[in-house]
Amino acid sequence: MRIVTLLTDFGQASPYPAEMRAVLCAGCRARVMDITHEIPAHDIASGAYVLAAAAPAFPAGTVHVAVVDPGVGTARLPLVVASGGHLFVGPDNGLLMPAARALGHPRAHVIDEERFGRPPRSATFHGRDLFAPAAAALASGLPVEQMGAPVAALVDLPEVQPARAPGVLTGQVVYRDAFGNLVTNIPGDWLRTCPESCVLDHPRGRVRVRRVRTYGEGDANEPLVLVGSNGTIEIAIRAGRAAEALGVEAGAPIALRAGDG
Amino acid sequence: MRIVTLLTDFGQASPYPAEMRAVLCAGCRARVMDITHEIPAHDIASGAYVLAAAAPAFPAGTVHVAVVDPGVGTARLPLVVASGGHLFVGPDNGLLMPAARALGHPRAHVIDEERFGRPPRSATFHGRDLFAPAAAALASGLPVEQMGAPVAALVDLPEVQPARAPGVLTGQVVYRDAFGNLVTNIPGDWLRTCPESCVLDHPRGRVRVRRVRTYGEGDANEPLVLVGSNGTIEIAIRAGRAAEALGVEAGAPIALRAGDG
Amino acid sequence: MRIVTLLTDFGQASPYPAEMRAVLCAGCRARVMDITHEIPAHDIASGAYVLAAAAPAFPAGTVHVAVVDPGVGTARLPLVVASGGHLFVGPDNGLLMPAARALGHPRAHVIDEERFGRPPRSATFHGRDLFAPAAAALASGLPVEQMGAPVAALVDLPEVQPARAPGVLTGQVVYRDAFGNLVTNIPGDWLRTCPESCVLDHPRGRVRVRRVRTYGEGDANEPLVLVGSNGTIEIAIRAGRAAEALGVEAGAPIALRAGDG
Repeated sequence: MRIVTLLTDFGQASPYPAEMRAVLCAGCRARVMDITHEIPAHDIASGAYVLAAAAPAFPAGTVHVAVVDPGVGTARLPLVVASGGHLFVGPDNGLLMPAARALGHPRAHVIDEERFGRPPRSATFHGRDLFAPAAAALASGLPVEQMGAPVAALVDLPEVQPARAPGVLTGQVVYRDAFGNLVTNIPGDWLRTCPESCVLDHPRGRVRVRRVRTYGEGDANEPLVLVGSNGTIEIAIRAGRAAEALGVEAGAPIALRAGDG
Repeated sequence: MRIVTLLTDFGQASPYPAEMRAVLCAGCRARVMDITHEIPAHDIASGAYVLAAAAPAFPAGTVHVAVVDPGVGTARLPLVVASGGHLFVGPDNGLLMPAARALGHPRAHVIDEERFGRPPRSATFHGRDLFAPAAAALASGLPVEQMGAPVAALVDLPEVQPARAPGVLTGQVVYRDAFGNLVTNIPGDWLRTCPESCVLDHPRGRVRVRRVRTYGEGDANEPLVLVGSNGTIEIAIRAGRAAEALGVEAGAPIALRAGDG
Repeated sequence: MRIVTLLTDFGQASPYPAEMRAVLCAGCRARVMDITHEIPAHDIASGAYVLAAAAPAFPAGTVHVAVVDPGVGTARLPLVVASGGHLFVGPDNGLLMPAARALGHPRAHVIDEERFGRPPRSATFHGRDLFAPAAAALASGLPVEQMGAPVAALVDLPEVQPARAPGVLTGQVVYRDAFGNLVTNIPGDWLRTCPESCVLDHPRGRVRVRRVRTYGEGDANEPLVLVGSNGTIEIAIRAGRAAEALGVEAGAPIALRAGDG
């Protein structure tokens, strides 16, 4: 039995996630599992991060439906993207790409709206009326090549690529989690630049961060730097919230400097 | 394998939804799916709206357990309501009726508390101790007629019925979703009254709303009117939140007027 | 098919619960069910309460994975605790013990990190990298004795034990639910001390509470005392929130006095 995951910004309080689950249950024998429905409204970058963090843990063959789609009903293409044995279904706005690129070489097809749209198709809820039926077809074994025409050029999100120079690492905060931890896109392997501590430059100022292996090694309110569970560099405060303490949000460019900065 | 859905105001943070799932798992072989546990506390009208929006998407044979029940343990009747092949289990306070009426002609039976109550039956948690065991019995195939005596008169929620006169539509906001969109009970077909735009009268004032097919057609902060995914008229702002911008809540009566109002 | 439940403080908005579900799906054929992921960050006592409230409703054989773990990656032991036919997997910080003690006589084993750790094992996410793989092994039938060495001394949470003297009951608020109800650890059987009403002493003051059987018997804003669904004494206000109205939080010591106090 295939797994179908759901990731949206619809809010768990709304009827919309249940409507998608209902269509998936009616249309295939998949095992439907939520990733989350609590992506901040219209925040494609946060959705892309969470999808890329969670999707690789699922087995090959999983179909991931992701809908953070402020352009629903406009000319943006509905996609199925195959990569590394996983299938991603959602809008062509960058949401699917970090996950798909992390798993292999993405191949994309447009979803034929006439064939897979669930009548009467709304203009505002493609999660229920197009993406869920398409995912049900994929989970039932329909080959991705039969979903629609291949698509070559895909929309990607803007991103500050991580970089390193002697004594300095640069990159971007890509996610703030429920503990207020700031997850960056800088590879954890690069943290040898900070043998014991280094200086963090961020849009609101500068702070010394001490390198630890795990949160519990920090003093209660001390800014820490460590390798997070996703394999990238993370900024944290053991008994506090780094995001609020530093005033830094997802999207912020940062730099880590060796020595006294 | 039958589907059993759950809708409550218990909050996902509490142990109560899991206690209901546990009773359902122990008592039948159903597939348990959440609609939501985030209905605002005691807000029967919002619960009724979400149930009516989500339930019809599930296949016939589904058992829907809905508990927004400020009168738990008092004289209000515990019900099972059959309609259009779906079964609804919950209190007789209006919560189940919009969904049941949308699916067909409801037939209701009281749930025999002595027979289906799970000992020791609490006075405060019928979701776990009465409605879940009754739903497990229904999902295992017990006919609805064997749940208890038929009930003729059912409690309905007060509602401002939608109406139309030349150049004016009236109705009610029935739901505010996670995007701040205001969902009304006015049929979307009637929107021809507003060919390009019309004037929205609401309890806090009056505003011009432009008719669009989908959110993406609006300017960032422009009030819009469109047919929502539920088939009714909806008020939205593309990059904002209509509910907060207009100061309008669920329950508010509204009118849409052609021309300059 | 065994049930595996999940309880964490990770937040449903984060990718972490889905990463745990993915590991459980890949590693066994269990039925994965959430208890909640909305325990307040690092609040071991609230997590312990919710686990103890929800776990006993599940059938024997269930594996409960609980992770509220500010000491992740430090010397605190990873445990599997068997009690009353249930298995509990999580950190040795008191989180598992109220549930395990409620179900029987707990027997604990340390989890062999070398054997069950999922490479590359992070220092910050044992939920995904150690506890989920261990739970998958248990759900697949591995005997608890094969998980690692037995552990004799376990960490317990501090608690104000309930006590009674003539005309006075003392104990602790152990949980505030989504309705603002204050759940205590005082057995409901003891409520005969308050035949009609009694006086509640709490850290912020003193208030008369009337004894009722169910919420609906109260006036809108009247403080009530009743036996809650968990079998312990609860303080509530029908149309309000007792926690906010009285200014009382989980953890507060309380006393209930007969007569005029």
